Amino acid sequence: MTICYDGTRYKGWQRLKQTRETIQDKIESVLSRYFDDAITIDGAGRTDAGVHARAQVCSFTATATDVTILLQQLNRYLPEDIVVTEVEKADERFHARFHAVSKTYVYTLWTAAYPPVFERQYVLPITPSIDLARMETCAGYLIGQHDFKGFCTDKTKKSTVRTLHHIVFEREGDVIRCKFTGDGFLYNMVRILMGTLLEVGEGKREPESVLEVFEHLDRRLAGETAPAQGLTLEAVAYESD
Amino acid sequence: MTICYDGTRYKGWQRLKQTRETIQDKIESVLSRYFDDAITIDGAGRTDAGVHARAQVCSFTATATDVTILLQQLNRYLPEDIVVTEVEKADERFHARFHAVSKTYVYTLWTAAYPPVFERQYVLPITPSIDLARMETCAGYLIGQHDFKGFCTDKTKKSTVRTLHHIVFEREGDVIRCKFTGDGFLYNMVRILMGTLLEVGEGKREPESVLEVFEHLDRRLAGETAPAQGLTLEAVAYESD
Repeated sequence: MTICYDGTRYKGWQRLKQTRETIQDKIESVLSRYFDDAITIDGAGRTDAGVHARAQVCSFTATATDVTILLQQLNRYLPEDIVVTEVEKADERFHARFHAVSKTYVYTLWTAAYPPVFERQYVLPITPSIDLARMETCAGYLIGQHDFKGFCTDKTKKSTVRTLHHIVFEREGDVIRCKFTGDGFLYNMVRILMGTLLEVGEGKREPESVLEVFEHLDRRLAGETAPAQGLTLEAVAYESD
Repeated sequence: MTICYDGTRYKGWQRLKQTRETIQDKIESVLSRYFDDAITIDGAGRTDAGVHARAQVCSFTATATDVTILLQQLNRYLPEDIVVTEVEKADERFHARFHAVSKTYVYTLWTAAYPPVFERQYVLPITPSIDLARMETCAGYLIGQHDFKGFCTDKTKKSTVRTLHHIVFEREGDVIRCKFTGDGFLYNMVRILMGTLLEVGEGKREPESVLEVFEHLDRRLAGETAPAQGLTLEAVAYESD
């Protein structure tokens, strides 16, 4: 299934014991009622509290059903800030997270001298004088295969090596879209990359400073974690794509 | 002043006796506090309840002040769904409504097989099978100078003759933007034009049927009033533009 959601009022994607206000919980509740069976879904990306998704992907196992009717019924019972945009039958072995080959996250930055209105839940207001050229120079050091241990808050002992395929900046009027595509993202990785890039763009650190983070693998050497506001999981790619 | 607002939770632009929930009221309150004087503003277009504006224009008279500071202070105290995007000193005789030479309203239609998420307050969901070519044919009959008495709910005895400069349809993905530009719009006129065009696009009436509305000037011959949702006052033009 492909899902679009406004993460503003949720505690993130992943089901939690202490609250029912997660995207996963909302979808599983409606799916379980539809199939009259306890359904568990696997999401491709576990978005944080407040993070949005334009095309999150999740997989689950259930009895055969008409996918068009399923899509209609899900959208009928889901809250208005969670919408299923596509339902497809997949190979039995398909797993939305394990089989994803790349993900794209987009940070939407707002640079106008006045606050956003229609976009206010979906953009991060930043200083209008941001130096995009400096951010682009820094992005050049960030892309490629690196150990991103210094750019995450994962306590994992597993590998923190990831490949960042590209970081693309698109300016459109008062908005700058920063697109991050990689084979996988560690916990808070996009937010710390964005926070670091913003400090570079504000002249608070040099573009080359990220090389030290890679060298020492030290979270304290990277920038602040940028707010979740303005961050969207844009797309998940699979081999068949 | 140029103002952008999300009209969702307001009773429209114009100040009302029975409620303080109008855009005009919110702006006048903050302006009056700033100038420490009762300020009355004149808006170029009196948008209905639920209608948005990307660039509404209003004029008012007050003592001289720094326009940059005024803009910052207004945005500091206005609610987050009303933002002042520009403040300019104008000629003493300038009146935002009387001097406007044309206005552009945009209806944003949503044609996907699933509901909108990020755009849910700003689009009007319609049937995906809408026939845009039929709507374009009908728009050809609507543009020009006509007596739009049958396309409004004004009880006015004043002239209901207006010139509709153009109606432009732009399709972008699942969205169709219908842009109406004219020298002035009567009460509910854009909503009734849109409602009529939608009935044409759905095959419920013929494109030529609008000629009868012009002939008989009878509101009952036009289509339903489309919902305010999805309607935005996009721009107001003045001679100096």
